[in-house]
Amino acid sequence: MKLSDSSEDPLINRITDRLVQRDDVLVGPGDDCAVVTLPSGDLQLLKTDCVVEGVHYNPDENAERVGWKAIARVVSDIASMGGTPHAFVVTLVLTPDTAVEWLDALYIGMQKCAETFRLSIVGGETSSSPNGSANVISVAGTGHVHPSRLVLRCTGKVGDAIFVTGRLGGSLSGKHLDFTPRIQPAQWLVKNFKPNAMMDLSDGLAKDLPRMANTSGVSYAVDRSAIPCSDNCTITQALSDGEDYELLFTLSPELVGQLESDWPTDFPPLTRIGCIKDISHSPTQLEGGWEHFSDL
Amino acid sequence: MKLSDSSEDPLINRITDRLVQRDDVLVGPGDDCAVVTLPSGDLQLLKTDCVVEGVHYNPDENAERVGWKAIARVVSDIASMGGTPHAFVVTLVLTPDTAVEWLDALYIGMQKCAETFRLSIVGGETSSSPNGSANVISVAGTGHVHPSRLVLRCTGKVGDAIFVTGRLGGSLSGKHLDFTPRIQPAQWLVKNFKPNAMMDLSDGLAKDLPRMANTSGVSYAVDRSAIPCSDNCTITQALSDGEDYELLFTLSPELVGQLESDWPTDFPPLTRIGCIKDISHSPTQLEGGWEHFSDL
Repeated sequence: MKLSDSSEDPLINRITDRLVQRDDVLVGPGDDCAVVTLPSGDLQLLKTDCVVEGVHYNPDENAERVGWKAIARVVSDIASMGGTPHAFVVTLVLTPDTAVEWLDALYIGMQKCAETFRLSIVGGETSSSPNGSANVISVAGTGHVHPSRLVLRCTGKVGDAIFVTGRLGGSLSGKHLDFTPRIQPAQWLVKNFKPNAMMDLSDGLAKDLPRMANTSGVSYAVDRSAIPCSDNCTITQALSDGEDYELLFTLSPELVGQLESDWPTDFPPLTRIGCIKDISHSPTQLEGGWEHFSDL
Repeated sequence: MKLSDSSEDPLINRITDRLVQRDDVLVGPGDDCAVVTLPSGDLQLLKTDCVVEGVHYNPDENAERVGWKAIARVVSDIASMGGTPHAFVVTLVLTPDTAVEWLDALYIGMQKCAETFRLSIVGGETSSSPNGSANVISVAGTGHVHPSRLVLRCTGKVGDAIFVTGRLGGSLSGKHLDFTPRIQPAQWLVKNFKPNAMMDLSDGLAKDLPRMANTSGVSYAVDRSAIPCSDNCTITQALSDGEDYELLFTLSPELVGQLESDWPTDFPPLTRIGCIKDISHSPTQLEGGWEHFSDL
């Protein structure tokens, strides 16, 4: 059996099922970040991600934007757990015919993102790959989170309202390279209106909301007409384009009114798109979303 | 200019020079691991590395051995700083035609290494790459180190004796896949005979000893005939094959006699190969070592 014969989630379950976690691992594979307890008792977030030439960016793309994206994707995952990014490491796997100037620009973009979010790129590794291979930029990062502010994706509760930040869809028109990870709204949320569950939207709402519901053991009802679409995007695009890097979160219904009135005007728009239902409820059909091994 | 026109070290300096570190970064790029101060004041080691199909393993290689290697390389770097591995994350970049059974075996090997060294693989990311690309397994790991046991590579002192553990060369006969990271000897050393400088041998003694000397601002004299060669290996192979994953360290001369008599018999052999000299001393010629972008 080949990877292209399997969809992504069963494949990931298959490989992570055999992993054995130490007692100090609070959250292992399956959420936006892992959460480990440090010897001091503090919680640390850990995340790894990558951008691949021909998959996450085009070969002729401005390398500075690619560098921004590579770091920002990990920042977005740390944000969605309620955390603050700290120290990042970068593995580059590049073909020998890669231009040194491309590499320079990549690092300018990475450092720009690091400065914006006050994290350090503390190290890395560089390897060659055979000419003809796709270049790969793999980024791993740590973050801190106060135990009282940690939000998982598996803890959505029946009756919760479902919200998204920003507008969805149209990532390929450029947003997938220039997005702003929602660190600020996420930190404001976990401080003031702690969501019951939260994740970042990376594979499209049609893929990510069912993931959140499945892992929470719940179902959902979504008002498709309420989904906030990017300019010139259809609802289908908003559901399935992916790479939105917006926050998807659920909130206890009694907090909804206050959240909607307190939401800062300089934040991206906030939209209530539905609510969490009991598992016996048939979820709203949301077709689409990005499948890594079969969509190529 | 292409990557293949540059040697590895200037290339790495070029990209890391522009990185700006937060004040809590004790050691940034350039050593086996980065060292960051956590909010609690504890020190954390951070390392990222990768194995690439066709570069670090052959496409028909047993995936379990590849998995072991991918984790063990990072453990080796953490060992060489005096640390203990903790939490690891794995990014896989795989072509859609990769066999699921290969992936299963890869994770069996990774988990075996994780259990052996009591670390957790806490998360990961999986991305497709275009068919025809080399598969990439990128591993990032954290470790702990007590401040009194941290050893850097840039602090070798004039007069120090230079030691290596184990036997060098011949990695391609299989050792590069099945090696044992020197966690135990490294931890014994930093506790009992703290080296002035230490690193792991990944690119061959001919490449790594000059790196240690350069960053320490010193030179060295090596007795080539003292270099411990693996069975059926010449000194040239011992100098240049790379992927030994042995410890290279320097020790104050007054500790040498005691170290040599106390070195546990169940550890790999310990060999004194030379001494650290003043920078005005011409270093012993050690030709060879692995160059990532020009040796392909």
